Amino acid sequence: MSISTVSYALNGSAKVSEPTRTRIKEIADRLGYAPKLAARTLKGNKTNIIGVYISSFQGEFYGELLDGMQHRLELLGYDMMVNSGNRTQKFLSEKLFDGAIILDNKFQDDDLNKVLTQGNKVVVLDREVSHENARTVLLDNASGSKEAVEYLVSQHQENYYIISGPRGNYDVETRLQAAIETFEKSGKSFKILEGDFTEQSGYEAAEKIIAEAKDKTVGVYSLNDDEAIGFYRYARRHHILLEPQFKIVGFDNNHSADFLYPILPSISYRKHLWGEQAAETLIDLIESKPSAKNQTIKTALSFRK
Amino acid sequence: MSISTVSYALNGSAKVSEPTRTRIKEIADRLGYAPKLAARTLKGNKTNIIGVYISSFQGEFYGELLDGMQHRLELLGYDMMVNSGNRTQKFLSEKLFDGAIILDNKFQDDDLNKVLTQGNKVVVLDREVSHENARTVLLDNASGSKEAVEYLVSQHQENYYIISGPRGNYDVETRLQAAIETFEKSGKSFKILEGDFTEQSGYEAAEKIIAEAKDKTVGVYSLNDDEAIGFYRYARRHHILLEPQFKIVGFDNNHSADFLYPILPSISYRKHLWGEQAAETLIDLIESKPSAKNQTIKTALSFRK
Repeated sequence: MSISTVSYALNGSAKVSEPTRTRIKEIADRLGYAPKLAARTLKGNKTNIIGVYISSFQGEFYGELLDGMQHRLELLGYDMMVNSGNRTQKFLSEKLFDGAIILDNKFQDDDLNKVLTQGNKVVVLDREVSHENARTVLLDNASGSKEAVEYLVSQHQENYYIISGPRGNYDVETRLQAAIETFEKSGKSFKILEGDFTEQSGYEAAEKIIAEAKDKTVGVYSLNDDEAIGFYRYARRHHILLEPQFKIVGFDNNHSADFLYPILPSISYRKHLWGEQAAETLIDLIESKPSAKNQTIKTALSFRK
Repeated sequence: MSISTVSYALNGSAKVSEPTRTRIKEIADRLGYAPKLAARTLKGNKTNIIGVYISSFQGEFYGELLDGMQHRLELLGYDMMVNSGNRTQKFLSEKLFDGAIILDNKFQDDDLNKVLTQGNKVVVLDREVSHENARTVLLDNASGSKEAVEYLVSQHQENYYIISGPRGNYDVETRLQAAIETFEKSGKSFKILEGDFTEQSGYEAAEKIIAEAKDKTVGVYSLNDDEAIGFYRYARRHHILLEPQFKIVGFDNNHSADFLYPILPSISYRKHLWGEQAAETLIDLIESKPSAKNQTIKTALSFRK
């Protein structure tokens, strides 16, 4: 049997008789072979599906970001598959996706480099990468963090704390570094408590900070709002009035923190827009349209007026 | 070239020389052929990946549900891919997934039936289905809705409203039907306003309801909490004190509504558990372990104490 016969049979060409086609398909099936998913789509080798890699679905942060991506991708004619777990990384190499948006610590630098070397187009939201097939859309964490700490320091509290996020994470490290520098520049001493960006870790930090405070005034910079909300929850459960002793600043300006009392000032940026911009940048890259290599999403202190 | 040579070459057997293997792989590649994804995994035809189909990432509802699924799937040795959009439905037929969890109006009954007939294992969270390859894990909407309306009626308001969700949706229809029956049984008249489960639609309903109220007392049953939060947002923006004129009851007991004032009573159920139970039921079905065909998640009125 010639290769061209197999080719005609599998491509559904009329040059091959039905019994031959059936037999070849049976053999292909027995061997576990099927047309590449990408090859089945209409437009050349495109699937018009974008893979999105995130580390967790927890918290409200991802919902708005993913909604932004989905909204823009739909307008541009693409669908989206959100991956969680390592088993699905191979689908990028297997061309199931036309490209990927990555905000996932579990997607390691080595694997990312491999994927880029294979020619996959990727937009990264959580690290700095320099490769012709990669674009970054990163938050301006340093500027936001500086503003958060300067605001806290202007409140003239006696003790200061930073509630950290998961170490190693790009957003955490850049926020932390700018916060430390700003505290040091102001001459204020401070403590860092470990957190992991969950409410629970903010709740636990609150317990420690409030116990240590005694009658001193305290300023707390929580590296995300989920942790800050955990702080409020601890205070509410233990009937502790936050104002005026405890002043907290968060990051992310979560929608769900809008009804907290006292108001939680927070570093804000447009999450939905971030998702949209990541999506648009990736499609530009895939469709070989010009786009800036490194984009930044602006941040600013918000008082939720 | 014999079929067995091709087979040996593609399976990496030592019976085929390296140049032959290379040539065959080149041809397979040129023809757009690759091993079926499923065939490459260790355990027979399994990929150990579960497809999850949802209609939207908006709101906080999905985050907790997906987190519950992911948590349980990880413990059971499975990864998860969350699909949004119609293009990805074919991956279920193509055995990219060992099974699927569906909570997606865009996944139509016809397509679901096709997928079940092909032998795919599915757990459905948003409709009633009877098929040997399907299990349902549904919310007890009727009981919750009855409790919500009975509570409102016990508050002896003058006017009553229901803010609906997207019509055609299983949860909306079952909540709506039970609410209508309970209002009718109580002898209270009421109006239904259309909503779509977003904050924005609750905000718009608030505008109408508050304008119509004049000095009458009003009871509002919002079919989900996102809409109820939209109601609070409208009131806050327009400096309208809700208590004692406006009493609202929601559904979902959203975590982010915990800090609303006045307290928003809401029909609660364990979202994380719902996700976990859906995951566990699907894996039981895939691994041919016994599991109840139709499961129900309990609901109860909560005052967020």
